[in-house]
This record gives sequence, C-alpha cells and structure tokens, in this order.
Amino acid sequence: MKKILFLKLILLVLFEFQSFAQEAIFRAQQIVSPEIHDNQAVTFRLLAPDAKSVQVTGDFLPTVKMDSPMGKVDAPGKADMVKDDKGVWEFKSPTLGPELYNYSFIIDGFTTTDPNNPFQIRDVASVTNIFIIEGGQAEYYKTNDFPHGTVSRRWYDSPGLGMDRRITIYTPPGYETSSEKYPVLYLLHGAGGDEEAWISLGRTAQIMDNLIAQGKAKPMIVVMPNGNVIQDAAPGEGSLGFYKPVFMAEKTMDGTYEANFMDIIKFVEENYRVIADKSHRAIAGLSMGGFHTMHISRYYPNTFDYMGLFSAALMPREDATGKVYTDIDGTLKTQMDNGYQLYWIAIGKTDFLFGENKAYRAKLDTMKMPYEYVESEGGHIWRNWRVYLTQFVPQLF
Amino acid sequence: MKKILFLKLILLVLFEFQSFAQEAIFRAQQIVSPEIHDNQAVTFRLLAPDAKSVQVTGDFLPTVKMDSPMGKVDAPGKADMVKDDKGVWEFKSPTLGPELYNYSFIIDGFTTTDPNNPFQIRDVASVTNIFIIEGGQAEYYKTNDFPHGTVSRRWYDSPGLGMDRRITIYTPPGYETSSEKYPVLYLLHGAGGDEEAWISLGRTAQIMDNLIAQGKAKPMIVVMPNGNVIQDAAPGEGSLGFYKPVFMAEKTMDGTYEANFMDIIKFVEENYRVIADKSHRAIAGLSMGGFHTMHISRYYPNTFDYMGLFSAALMPREDATGKVYTDIDGTLKTQMDNGYQLYWIAIGKTDFLFGENKAYRAKLDTMKMPYEYVESEGGHIWRNWRVYLTQFVPQLF
Repeated sequence: MKKILFLKLILLVLFEFQSFAQEAIFRAQQIVSPEIHDNQAVTFRLLAPDAKSVQVTGDFLPTVKMDSPMGKVDAPGKADMVKDDKGVWEFKSPTLGPELYNYSFIIDGFTTTDPNNPFQIRDVASVTNIFIIEGGQAEYYKTNDFPHGTVSRRWYDSPGLGMDRRITIYTPPGYETSSEKYPVLYLLHGAGGDEEAWISLGRTAQIMDNLIAQGKAKPMIVVMPNGNVIQDAAPGEGSLGFYKPVFMAEKTMDGTYEANFMDIIKFVEENYRVIADKSHRAIAGLSMGGFHTMHISRYYPNTFDYMGLFSAALMPREDATGKVYTDIDGTLKTQMDNGYQLYWIAIGKTDFLFGENKAYRAKLDTMKMPYEYVESEGGHIWRNWRVYLTQFVPQLF
Repeated sequence: MKKILFLKLILLVLFEFQSFAQEAIFRAQQIVSPEIHDNQAVTFRLLAPDAKSVQVTGDFLPTVKMDSPMGKVDAPGKADMVKDDKGVWEFKSPTLGPELYNYSFIIDGFTTTDPNNPFQIRDVASVTNIFIIEGGQAEYYKTNDFPHGTVSRRWYDSPGLGMDRRITIYTPPGYETSSEKYPVLYLLHGAGGDEEAWISLGRTAQIMDNLIAQGKAKPMIVVMPNGNVIQDAAPGEGSLGFYKPVFMAEKTMDGTYEANFMDIIKFVEENYRVIADKSHRAIAGLSMGGFHTMHISRYYPNTFDYMGLFSAALMPREDATGKVYTDIDGTLKTQMDNGYQLYWIAIGKTDFLFGENKAYRAKLDTMKMPYEYVESEGGHIWRNWRVYLTQFVPQLF
C-alpha cells in the first residue's frame, strides 16, 4: 500500500498537469541549453532531427552590418549549429564577458525561442531567451543574497487622461517597516515599451537591490509608469486585452503624456512616504523616455533636481504643436536659472541618435546650460541602458 | 529640417533597438495570429515557407488518449495546418466556448511558440501561448474596467528555513487608502509551481478584481507563497539564478514546508492590515498545494476556518516520516472538534487523483468530519483550478 502511494506521488510529479500541461512535461526536451561552462563559453543545443539548418542568433555574437532605410545598421550576428547523430544541433561560443545576453534559434529560416530555456523577455512584440554570464557589470543584474526591495504593480487614477492606469513601483528594502521618507526616481521607457520594460529588460529591481546593498546608491523609490497614453496598461495587462504591441502607439510624443505627468507625481506623493521636494525628485528615461524626460523637466522647470537622458530622442515631431512644445528654449533657460544638481546625458558612439544628441549638446553649450556627458561604445541597445542606470543612480540624492 | 526630424522620429520607431532588439522589429512576422473571429472561431497562422509540416496543438482541441505509465491519459489534440502559396500555414478552429486557452506550434516535429503572439505563460519548464475567448467564465480572467488590486512581489524572512523568501501578495482595491483590516486567503501552488504560478497561470488578480467588483467576494488579501523550501524564489528570480525548473524539487512533501508555515502567517500578520483570527483565515491549494492545505490545516488545527482542496494529492510519501505526518487521524479529529466554516473538496472526474480523493472522502465520512464536495468534468488541469478558485472565494468570510 505504501509502495503504491509512493508510486502515485512519483506519478503525480509526472502527471501534475494532465491536459493543459501534460504537454509541458513531454514537450520540454531533456537536454541542457544554454550550458554555461566554467570558462564562460556557452553551448546552445536544440533537438530538431528533421531540420535542414539551425542557427543561433543573439547579442553575444559580433554584430553584422545590415541594410536599412537609415543606411547600414548593426544587427545581431548568426552562427551555424551542427547536428549530431541523435538530431541534436549544437553551437559552442567562445568565452564571453560578463553580461545579460539574449538569443534565438533560426530553424530552416524560422526564428523562435529555445524550448529548453524558460527564461525569456518580451521586447515590444518579440520574445527572446536570456542568460547571464556572471561577474563584473553582470553582478548588478543577478539576484544576489542581499536585502530585496518590493516590486508592485498598482493602478492609479489619472484624471487628466480619464482612466485608471497601471504602474510599476520599486520600494527599497525596509520601506514597509521603517517610518523613513524616501526620494523618488521616475524612470521612463522607450517607444514600444510600457510599465514592464524597465523592470524586465532593464533589470531595475536587481540593479537597485545590488547598488543599495553595496552602499553605492541611496535607498529610493523607483516609479516606472506607462508612457503610452492610449493604454491603461501594458498589452495583455489592461482593458484592451491581448493585442500585438507596436513600436509607436498613437499620441506617445504629442505632448499628452508630458502635460499629464503631474497625475503620476501626485499619486506617488499622496500614496508613498516620499520627500516631496525638488531635491528629492529625479527623472530619467531611454530613447522616447529621454525625450519625455527632457520635455517634462523643462515644462515643469522647478520640479526635478536630477535629469537622465539615456540615448534620448530630443526633437518634437512636426505634428506636435501643443502647448508642451512651445518655447522650448525659454523653458530650458528657466530650468537652468532655477538650478539643478545634475543634467546627465549618455549615448553610444554608434547610436543613430548620436547626431541629434550632439546638436542638443551644442545648443546647451551655447546657452551655457550645465550638463554631464558620457559617451559609451555601442548603439541604441538595452545593454547600454542597463549600464547607464547603474551609472546614473549612484549620483542621485 | 522639420521633415527630416519627422523622418528621424519615424525611423526611431523602426530602429528603437539597434542590436539587441533590432531583431525584435524584423523578427516579428507581420501576420495576425491568433485571429479571433466574431463567431469565436480562431485562425492560427505561421510564416514558415521551408517547413514540411506544421501542426497546432493546445487545450482548445479535443483531447486524445496517450499511453503513459498510468495507462491511457488525456493529451492535447493536434490539428494539421495548411500552407498557402506565400508560405503561410493556417488552421481555423470551430467556434470555441469562453475560456483561457493555450497552444503551441509543431514544426517538422519541433514544438515551439507562435512568434506573432507575445502572450505566453510558463508552466514548470515549458512556455506556451495563450488567448482568451470572451464571455461566461472567461470574463473572470480578463482585465475589466473595474477597480484593481495591487500585486506585489515581496521578500519575507523565514527564520525556520534560514532565508529570505519571495512571496506574491494581492491586496484588494482600496487597501492602500483605507484603514480597514482584511481577511486573508493563503493560496498554494502544485508540484513544479512557485510563487508565480497562481498569479500567472491562475489569473488570480483578474479573478479577485472581478469577483470583488461584482460583489461576489469580500475584499481580501491573497498570499501566494513558494512551496519549494529549497528555493528562495521562483527559478530565475532568486539567488539560484537561471536554471531549468523541475516538477518536484527536493523536500517539497517531506513536512518541512508545513512545519515552517507559521513564518509566512507571522510575516503577513505583522506587515499587512489583517484580521488575525481563525475566522478570517482561509487556505487552499491545487494538487501538491491541496496536500499542503490538508496537512497544514490539521497540523495547526485551530488556525483556519476555510479549507480548499483543489485536485489534492492527499497521502504522504513513504519517506515522509517527520512529526507533521504523525497522528493524521488524531489531528484531523482535533481540527473537526475545533470547528470550521468550510472544508471544500473539488476534483475532476478524470483526474488521476480521483480515487485517492474518493478514499479520503470515505475517511472523512467515517469520521463524520463535515466537508462540501464538487465534482467537475475534466482532469488535473489549470482550467479546473481557475474555476475552483472562482467557486471557492465567494464562500469565504
């Protein structure tokens, strides 16, 4: 009897999910991929006996030049995988430096995920696998054995936009049990992103936990709103249901977001223990979020002491004729005259927005508006934005 | 100049992600899949010109019988897709009833996700796509325009297990702004699950928001812990890093979790505004979580007024010889004598644990221990567990 019960429990393990996910049991291939070796080389494997060709592509491979409407741009490289006599395709990378990498498989021309690796992230409408090579900068991206902050998905009322909206909020370790008040970083995503982008692709919670634990950053609240004003939440999380995310939702860069940003600040300051003054408010964003950062911070020119423009888009669209984009130079000057602690601009040397950023810096130079500038390698990529976040946050408050 | 800037912004949209996710732009196929028609039929599409055969599989198809160590079990059906002259494979389902469904594609024998549908869920180590057919029961699974609770991923100290552990907590709409105290449901996952299972596969936040908004459930806090005592968090979220989840972690059913469950209750009652008494505590779980529910509720026999055993495993493993599993009958009798409001048992007619549940009910009948019993169609599947949750929660508090 006992033996039978024990057998049943073993079978319970095997048959935990009978119809829905019985599939889950039998589908997952019993091979290891990716396998990270001691020397930080990585082997990718895929069981696909009937495939004619399998490649791996990802940002761990050297980039290649690709034609585009912008001329040649960088694209992730591809490597051929080799099939063994059991139908398992394999590729072993050279030693890789510490980083959070992404990859996909290309099977007979069809790009898809690695069924042996459940760790995936969504970037706009595409899902790729990820892995981490430990050490160096990548230590910030891991969950280490440090105290952890809380990540909440919450909804706030935006009277200006006439809807409840979803927002992601990181509160630092100890927030719930202390009576302390905290400074706030408002952290904005790029085009095609939403309130999930920074916490997922940006590893914000891990970065903040690690920086705070190491004494490199002050404990702070990080607020990650949704910059697409036609959405109440990320695709799949809101009242619009499941639909394919697009790069540019309507009304993302027409001033509506900037003009209603105070709804977010009001919500945060009424609902969290924060120090509600300029010297304890920072705002930063990547690409479109850098655009929003630039415009929000000068439109409310005495609100933030710290600005971070990561690979920022900077120029308004020609159809953006609303009040937010009038008198840009005048409001920048007011912002400068009001004073601030840090206006931080970072961009990669091969970013397609490099020229636009250079022109913007020239404008600031002409105005004698102070800023700090970091020029990195690489282009318009998440790898850079994670690095910029780890560089920016220690300078705050 | 303005035209050029406008063009740049358009290109910004196209080239938001240059290396990492430039791929994201070009990879996503520009076809719609799944397409849900007005009559609730669904068309699945995949661009794969070089494939020799493509099938779709999922729980929207009639199940088929599959051989297994348990004899014949239900497995998801498969349907052949047909290729058009552009290399797009297509299958149109018949009209489907309201439900949250999952599916995958099988391409030349290789099972993978739909690259046109970024909505996916992880079940143990496998990732599948999902879609919702609206109406009926499925209305509970959608994000409707009702007030929304907050979902927090937080870490608590478990002195008994000697580690900080991640936990998912749903607080109802209004929690943050009221001074009210709330009852608590402890909701436990099955083997292979973790603190992400109920919130993701179980649609707990949507179900709770909808039930509360419709006046069908009382506002309550729902606590979703991780029942694998060797993990501090779900795979990929904890200090163990990225590793392939398995069905049965070590020490999941050996009494360790049950013996340390008070660490969780203590954390919740010290950190949330709760009504900390038996009549405002409920505990429920699926499969292994039903096992944990049964054992925790009798091991602490005067702690919970509401128990929910969803497709529960019920018998201890033969190597589970610890204190928790001694005197099961005696502690059950104590639990009965102490009194409770609801002991709710639900299972599907084709569940492989049906016999075990029948034996357990017979035991309770012999003891005259009161319980309510719901017998559903189907087997050991998430579809049932979501339904059981919507049936159980309205009976609480």
